[in-house]
Amino acid sequence: MDFHTVWHPCTQMKDHESVPPLLIERADGVYLYDRDGNKYLDVISSWWVNLFGHNHPRLNSALKAQLDKVAHVMFAGITHKPAIDLAARLIELSPDNLRKVFFSDNGSTAVEVAVKMSLQYWRQTGHASKRKFAYLKGGYHGETLGALSLCGIDMFRENFNEVLMSNIEVEGPDCYRCPYGLKPETCGAECFESMQKTLADHQDTLAGVIIEPLVQGAAGMKMYPPVYLEKLQSACKVHNVHTIYDEIAVGFGRTGSLFVSAEHELSPTFLCLSKGITSGYLPLAATLTEDEIYSAFYDDFATMKLFVHSHSYSANPLACAVANESLAMLTENDFLEKLQPKIQALKEFGKRLQELNWVGEFRQTGMIAAAELVKDKETKEAFPFEDRVGYRIYQEGLKRGVLMRPLGNVVYFIPPLVISIEEIKTMIDTATDCIRAVLD
Amino acid sequence: MDFHTVWHPCTQMKDHESVPPLLIERADGVYLYDRDGNKYLDVISSWWVNLFGHNHPRLNSALKAQLDKVAHVMFAGITHKPAIDLAARLIELSPDNLRKVFFSDNGSTAVEVAVKMSLQYWRQTGHASKRKFAYLKGGYHGETLGALSLCGIDMFRENFNEVLMSNIEVEGPDCYRCPYGLKPETCGAECFESMQKTLADHQDTLAGVIIEPLVQGAAGMKMYPPVYLEKLQSACKVHNVHTIYDEIAVGFGRTGSLFVSAEHELSPTFLCLSKGITSGYLPLAATLTEDEIYSAFYDDFATMKLFVHSHSYSANPLACAVANESLAMLTENDFLEKLQPKIQALKEFGKRLQELNWVGEFRQTGMIAAAELVKDKETKEAFPFEDRVGYRIYQEGLKRGVLMRPLGNVVYFIPPLVISIEEIKTMIDTATDCIRAVLD
Repeated sequence: MDFHTVWHPCTQMKDHESVPPLLIERADGVYLYDRDGNKYLDVISSWWVNLFGHNHPRLNSALKAQLDKVAHVMFAGITHKPAIDLAARLIELSPDNLRKVFFSDNGSTAVEVAVKMSLQYWRQTGHASKRKFAYLKGGYHGETLGALSLCGIDMFRENFNEVLMSNIEVEGPDCYRCPYGLKPETCGAECFESMQKTLADHQDTLAGVIIEPLVQGAAGMKMYPPVYLEKLQSACKVHNVHTIYDEIAVGFGRTGSLFVSAEHELSPTFLCLSKGITSGYLPLAATLTEDEIYSAFYDDFATMKLFVHSHSYSANPLACAVANESLAMLTENDFLEKLQPKIQALKEFGKRLQELNWVGEFRQTGMIAAAELVKDKETKEAFPFEDRVGYRIYQEGLKRGVLMRPLGNVVYFIPPLVISIEEIKTMIDTATDCIRAVLD
Repeated sequence: MDFHTVWHPCTQMKDHESVPPLLIERADGVYLYDRDGNKYLDVISSWWVNLFGHNHPRLNSALKAQLDKVAHVMFAGITHKPAIDLAARLIELSPDNLRKVFFSDNGSTAVEVAVKMSLQYWRQTGHASKRKFAYLKGGYHGETLGALSLCGIDMFRENFNEVLMSNIEVEGPDCYRCPYGLKPETCGAECFESMQKTLADHQDTLAGVIIEPLVQGAAGMKMYPPVYLEKLQSACKVHNVHTIYDEIAVGFGRTGSLFVSAEHELSPTFLCLSKGITSGYLPLAATLTEDEIYSAFYDDFATMKLFVHSHSYSANPLACAVANESLAMLTENDFLEKLQPKIQALKEFGKRLQELNWVGEFRQTGMIAAAELVKDKETKEAFPFEDRVGYRIYQEGLKRGVLMRPLGNVVYFIPPLVISIEEIKTMIDTATDCIRAVLD
């Protein structure tokens, strides 16, 4: 129906000749409803954004209440309560060293803001040579060209390599195929040696290191233990390099805690947030940082040390109002503690997936889980990308009323946090059926 | 009040020691209300986004109606009526050659999308060497690093020059200080010779030229005649270079027509839209392009020609629903035709500004106007930036209940289109008083 005018993101439009896009008319809780009334369990939270389900009465009310006051005002020279409240709450709930909040619109801009603040900080403190960033292989931090220059996945960057900032890709953790033959539960992040060497070799030119803590989302929900982050923090301190935490996907309860950084008492220089910040309602992002950074920009106007960056809809009041309500819900009534039985259920049901011939690894961090499909469990040989195993499983899922969107050969689950244990079972059972339908 | 946690965009935060940000609690029509009940005429449409005033009943209703269906769903593999309708309307109302709409979140991303599509198009059609862009001195196209590499204003880019894509800055029109001694009304865009030479010299490496048609916003609402755009279009065709029109600020009625490109029967390869698209309610952007571009990406998946770019909130249904209602209002009941008396009134009142000793030029394109302040009308000598003439006028405006935000020495007006003639008079009278209070 919309083939004629709409070009969808990250989509080969020709695929829609055989599989048209779902036309979603309404949504409620963890379900999407198409125009024919079919319903789909949204196990990927509409691109990892939804926390409390669709059409939530409290979030809807918060949005409508703000709408009756003001939808939007410029955020330079002007402020408003929804932004003030949100900033204060984020500061309270994130690591103690983070004291300032800069708002923008999406994950890419949150990362661009961190990168630009870091660069300008070093320039303004006498270290202008520090202007490269290190990022992990498999890392993903957005797709505007600045953010894309921090991307460790070829598919996203290969058409643009010639114009991207020259940064440094570093071998990161690869726990399923650990080259050191270790187990994540007991390892000491021996794989940190690549990063250690990078930091030592390039400290004069390195401004920062960017990382997705614990879960590399777009790489296929690759997971690694917090000891890697501890080592990173110590090493970055030694070598005078900023740490940029991209908690855009993992923040706001996905891992079972509000923020990975806060849970593990880590102190990133920058913390980038988006996606779940509005529980999947509206675009909004925040980059949090330290007073040390802020102070380097705080001076008389004539010094021109200010941070010249803006988006017209920065700190959109509607989005901030929804974010405030969502944060209230996340922090009230032991909401996160009450996720524990769901996290346990996901672990239990996941064992069934792990038993399948084609599931090399079932891995989980809190409410995020993934089954990595392989041709051979012994050798861990991957399916070739042309087989489009994930895409075929996606189609099987639609037939069965479950919306998955595998990343290559990885079937992953990042459901709204309000999914029930019964629905978690349905999600895993259906994934099992789909994998078998395609591969058995 | 919010000094402690919020870092505002494009703001030297130290300025707030003496002038705290306005705390806006509500807004209605063309007025903002602070917590003490003071009201401010919003003559810059909250950073050039608002068209129909704040808290408009039709826009509020459209948003609420969509909210009761679904706030947001993923836009890959899924579609929805608000996006389909919006894309169809944009295609219908924009130049005929534009046939496809790619949604994103803000002006920067709309530009990044155009840039990335252009680069990948050339790669996929055997012209991989075409990977630079030309932009005008004074041009502004956003502040993510890709968009910033197309920026012709030092203040925005000087801290980041070393990491920006290597593009080509071109001398553009400078009508107030025309080096050819011509008048915009009668000139033949003799100043196009710089661009002509750039295109001829660099055609093998040039992917595209980006331009703000008719009004260079951030440069200080610098205006130039359409003949420049006609020449650009012909020359780009000859040299096989894409044209990227950034109508983010000028689109949706600001110039008196819906789009500059459509009004002047121009055929840009890409058209970037944002800001006014939701009449100042929510972040949303669109990049329109031709079937020629789209076709170069349309192939079997295995060829990997797809455009790999996404933002989680692409085509947010709430934002699309508001955009649809706003577009309906713009195109109903001769709305744009009925702007003509306002445009005339602005012209008339503007003459008073032009008479001031300090106003070198009063210029206007439709509902956008600007007074450029100079030390000397004869020599057109500018005030030094340290004098902060604009900032002082801004403060005078606040005292008088008018929210201006001059760009350097340029006091500009880009009010909501629903401003009344009486309010236009107030706007210009107050600006006159403020300029005199600061400079007389």
